[in-house]
Formats: sequence, structure tokens, C-alpha cells
Amino acid sequence: MNILDYDTVALDDSDSALVIIDQTKLPNQLEILHLHTQKEIWDAIYLLQVRGAPAIGVAAGYGVYLAAKGIDTEDYAFFEQEFVKASDYLNSSRPTAVNLSWALKRMKDVVIAGRGGSVADAKQKLLAEAKAIQQEDIDTCRRIGELGLSLVKPGDGILTHCNAGQLATSRYGTATAPMYLGHKQGYHFKIYCDETRPLLQGARLTSYELSSAGLDVTVLCDGMAASLMKQGKIQAVFTGCDRVAANGDAANKIGTMPLAIAAKYFGIPFYICAPSSTIDMSSKTGRDIKIEQRPAEEVTEMWYKERMAPKDVKVFNPAFDVTDAELITAIITEKGILRAPYTEFIKAIFK
Amino acid sequence: MNILDYDTVALDDSDSALVIIDQTKLPNQLEILHLHTQKEIWDAIYLLQVRGAPAIGVAAGYGVYLAAKGIDTEDYAFFEQEFVKASDYLNSSRPTAVNLSWALKRMKDVVIAGRGGSVADAKQKLLAEAKAIQQEDIDTCRRIGELGLSLVKPGDGILTHCNAGQLATSRYGTATAPMYLGHKQGYHFKIYCDETRPLLQGARLTSYELSSAGLDVTVLCDGMAASLMKQGKIQAVFTGCDRVAANGDAANKIGTMPLAIAAKYFGIPFYICAPSSTIDMSSKTGRDIKIEQRPAEEVTEMWYKERMAPKDVKVFNPAFDVTDAELITAIITEKGILRAPYTEFIKAIFK
Repeated sequence: MNILDYDTVALDDSDSALVIIDQTKLPNQLEILHLHTQKEIWDAIYLLQVRGAPAIGVAAGYGVYLAAKGIDTEDYAFFEQEFVKASDYLNSSRPTAVNLSWALKRMKDVVIAGRGGSVADAKQKLLAEAKAIQQEDIDTCRRIGELGLSLVKPGDGILTHCNAGQLATSRYGTATAPMYLGHKQGYHFKIYCDETRPLLQGARLTSYELSSAGLDVTVLCDGMAASLMKQGKIQAVFTGCDRVAANGDAANKIGTMPLAIAAKYFGIPFYICAPSSTIDMSSKTGRDIKIEQRPAEEVTEMWYKERMAPKDVKVFNPAFDVTDAELITAIITEKGILRAPYTEFIKAIFK
Repeated sequence: MNILDYDTVALDDSDSALVIIDQTKLPNQLEILHLHTQKEIWDAIYLLQVRGAPAIGVAAGYGVYLAAKGIDTEDYAFFEQEFVKASDYLNSSRPTAVNLSWALKRMKDVVIAGRGGSVADAKQKLLAEAKAIQQEDIDTCRRIGELGLSLVKPGDGILTHCNAGQLATSRYGTATAPMYLGHKQGYHFKIYCDETRPLLQGARLTSYELSSAGLDVTVLCDGMAASLMKQGKIQAVFTGCDRVAANGDAANKIGTMPLAIAAKYFGIPFYICAPSSTIDMSSKTGRDIKIEQRPAEEVTEMWYKERMAPKDVKVFNPAFDVTDAELITAIITEKGILRAPYTEFIKAIFK
């Protein structure tokens, strides 16, 4: 199958179920889930069956639309009250995921704006809003892909880290968007995916989605990327991004920053692909971005047949690292390609 | 237990068995094996129950001594013929391990030199030679430890990669020798061990031996080391080395080179610990060092409950990388601390 034939998150044809790819089963099984109840949708987000900030936002939009659709009343106040309950419930599935609450707030604003109108009308507008959230995500990723593609040549070797792919968005992905668009145009890239310890999103998800779409994919351990660079096999690095500070420092999955350092050492361009919604003007520099520490078991036990480190040793397991702006060749957003001095470029797109 | 109470490889008290720690069971079980037959010793080397170039050399010396001891004859020609058979057999257990054939050649030279003497006398000299191989290894590691210790301060954070520890040598290890010696002197180092994908020698072996000896050990994924450097937690990096070229370029376990690049970026000294026997004057630069590609399964399947990458993707799995001399602050050998210009320093110690 070609994964580009599927949306990571979608409504079914009768607008009555949320359809997702179960990402916890990849790469060993491709399982499409049809989620009908709020409990099923809550579980899918909580269990990371759907993951990636943009994809979660889209799932939340459709999810809370399905809840609204099921509220059988013509009393708007009652409808709104039940809607808020459903929204709060979904929001509790991953409370720290910014896109989840962001999407639910957009949907709630539709309900508030509809006061005085009919419930049936509000339901229609909620469906339109959920579709808009998805369409904006698709448009953003496509534009990042077009801009990113302008920075590489046919036949290039491209390295990526973690999964900033279609599976993390609605379509195209961010870091993968130039790869997918280039592939359609016959660019014949050679794509190299860091496995991305500890959660292996590169090996499990990125290599899966790119190879299922027909791209030439090679998986490697994170510490092997510099060897590829030294051999001249990498012409560009593209990664996604969780948050960009106002000065261009960028937080992304742990292991991104040493790639940027190695890329600079070998003179290879290092590109961050980031929807402009990722830019956080309240973080002046990377030092303002708090880095989450994750459980030790992810490093020592998860995935493995048995423990891979003694019980009495400590584990350092930060989820993200911050790449200094000076190491980033450009930040590719849907609003344009940003380059140093980032502070000025970033200010300009928020004018 | 304190692993420093054990030799990685030793003879038992009656000189009738080879005693090793079964490294394939670590870190989950500490199993001491008493190997009596040549088949048992062959298997132990083949199965990596004993591993690390210096440790394999010592095991081979004692192993072939035990074979010689069991040859029940007073006919020297027959003794030598049987000895050569036993030696060839052991040498076939890991034909590419240089220290294996090197140690067996030293032992064979003793037999050749003993021609004209008695078999009993040759057996005594073989035991003495095997003990000398081990003692030289211990002395070399201890000296590397003393010199390495002179480069750090009490309380320092030290990062290491893979296992260049006691488990790879007879005692002390190479990269770990300064840690063990400093620990005895109350240096209270904070040791950080890269897990070292794909074979996880850092998580499984280095963190095990250091923590069992009472050191303060933290395990991390390879891509997390740069974050520790950025946080100011690393004052020095010590790694082992498989081969040093005449210009100071050093081949070591894959993932070493990006550490050296990151250390340079953050201004942290990067030290290679290498017995002078590791210096290969026939390799002019790192480009002359052939890098072994290992099986894809080590990255995608080994250790895991199920496959961690799709079946149809390619895998890049080099065993080693080469760190350019310009990234190495010093190479610590038992003959002294070598610094740039390496070509001159290296020539000098071989005068």
C-alpha cells in the first residue's frame, strides 16, 4: 500500500466515525481503526494510537464534532453544556498536548458564536471547522514541502530524525513533505532515517511511511549519522520541530542537536521544518524552553526482551534537545524560509 | 559484588580451568564459568562470553596452556604437533580478532624455543608466558589509568562510549582505568555511559561494571550526550580505541566520532585511551582503516520483542567510525600521553 492514499486522521464517508492508522502497531501491522464513541477516541489519543501535534489537533476537531453530532436536542443551552463536557473529556486525554486544547478551543468558539442559532446549524459549522483545521494542516505541510524542495536537488541524500512525517500530521508531514513532493516529481532521493532512541519513531514510523510510499529508505542508529555525513552521502538534514524560540533556537526530539553540530562540522545544511504555529514568541531563547524528562524504563526496558541496563544505575532521558540558532541553516515555515538573523525574520512574519 | 575483585579472565587456583565472567548474561545475571575443555574455551570466545581484544588474548594464552598441560607425552615432537593442533583450533574461534592470533603466536614461540628441552619444562614456560601476557595487559591498563587520571579533577563528569572497560581487558580497562583508579582515591566522578547502539555494550556492560564497583553511573541514549555537554555536566570524554593510524586518526566503536565533534563544539577535552599495540603504523591515516559492515538484524531485531523497522528498508550498520586526529585532545597510551602533532609523537614512541 501507499500510505499517501490514506489520511492519518479522517472522518468516514458518512461522517459518523473517526478513522485513524493505529500507530502503536507499526511497523509490524497496518491496522485502520474506526472510532465511534468518545471513549474510543479518548483512548486512541491517550494510547498514542494517533500521535504528533498536528494529527492530534485534527483528531480532536473531528472527535468533538462526532460528540456534538450525537447530542440529541434542539435546546441550544443544553447542547452547549453537553458539548463542553465532551470537549473537556477529550482534552483530558493528553493534557500537555498544545494542539489538542488549541483545536478544541477553536471548536468551542464555533459553538459560542452560534448562540441564538439552531443546534442543527451549529453542528454543520462544527463539521466545517473541523474540516478547516485539517485542510489548514494539509496546506501548511504542502507549502513547507514546496519550500523545502527548492533547497535540494534530484538524487540528494537526505537525513531525518524521529517522525515529523505524514503520521504526525494530516498529510505530507513537515520534515517529510519535501521528500514526498520530490518523490512525486521523480527526484529519486536517498532518505536516511535515524532510528531515534529511545522510542524508535524513526525506525518504526518514518522508515515505514516513506518506504510504503515507495521512497528509497535506509535506517541507521543515531550515532551512525555522522559517518554518512563524512562519506559525503548526506546533502541536507531535515527535521521537524516542537517549539522555536523568538531567536531561532529550536527544540526538537532528543538527538537533533548533535546532528546539527555534525552537519555544521561537515558543511552540510541543516533545516528545521516548522509550521509558524510552532514559533513561540514568549520563549526569547532556547533557555526558556523547558525540557521534559521521561521515564527511565523507556531507555532500559521498553521494546526489549529483558532489561538492558542494571537496576541500580541512573538514567538520563530528556525528551527534547535545543539546537542553537547558529547551527540552523534555515527554518522552513509555510510563510517562508527563515534565515539568520532569525530574530528579525521571525518578527517579520508575525507582523 | 565489586567486579574489581574478579579478573575478567583467570586460571583457577589449581591451574586446571579458565575462569571467566559470562558477558552474554550481563547485566541480568553474573555467571562465572569454569572452562575445562578446549571445546568449552572455543565456544566461550566464539559466543562472545569473553570479548574485548585484550581479554581474548589472555583467554587464548591460558586456553592453549591448558591444552598443552593435558598433552600426556614426553616426546617433544609429538607434544609440539599436538600443541599446534590445539592452537589452530582456538585460533579458529574468532579468526579476525588480532589479539587472539597474537597471543597464540607468543605461546607457540615458547614451544619452538623449548625444542631440545623437556615437555615438562615447556609446560612451565607456557604457564609463565600466559601469565606474562595477562600481567602486561594489567600493567598497560593501570598505566593508562594513571596518566588519564592526571587529566581530570575530583568531582568531574566523565562521558564514555561502548565498553573499553575491565570486561574488555584483564583488569581496569582502558577508558575506564582512570575512573577506577580515581574512584579508589575518592575522586567521586559522575560517570555517564552512552548505551551504544546497536549492541548496547555501554548500557549492558560498562554501566554494570562501573556501578558494581561502586561508581556513580548514569546511562543515556547516544543522542543525549550532547545535551549533557551543553548543560556543563561533562568535563572530559574518555573512550577506547580499536586502531590508531600513524597520523592519530582513531577508529573506535560507531558513535565515537560524533561525540568528538560535539566535545569540540562545546570545548570539552576528548581523550582516546589506547595501548600502544593499538597503533598501526601501516595505516597512514584513518582512510586506510577498513570499516566492517555488520548485519542489519543487529539494528532492527536483536534484543527486541519484535522487529523495529519494516522488512523492506535498508540498514546502515558500520561497526566503527574514524575520529579525525584534529578532534582528539590527546591519545593516552601506556608509554605516555600523545598530543598533536600526532605523527611526530607517535613516531617517537616507536623509536
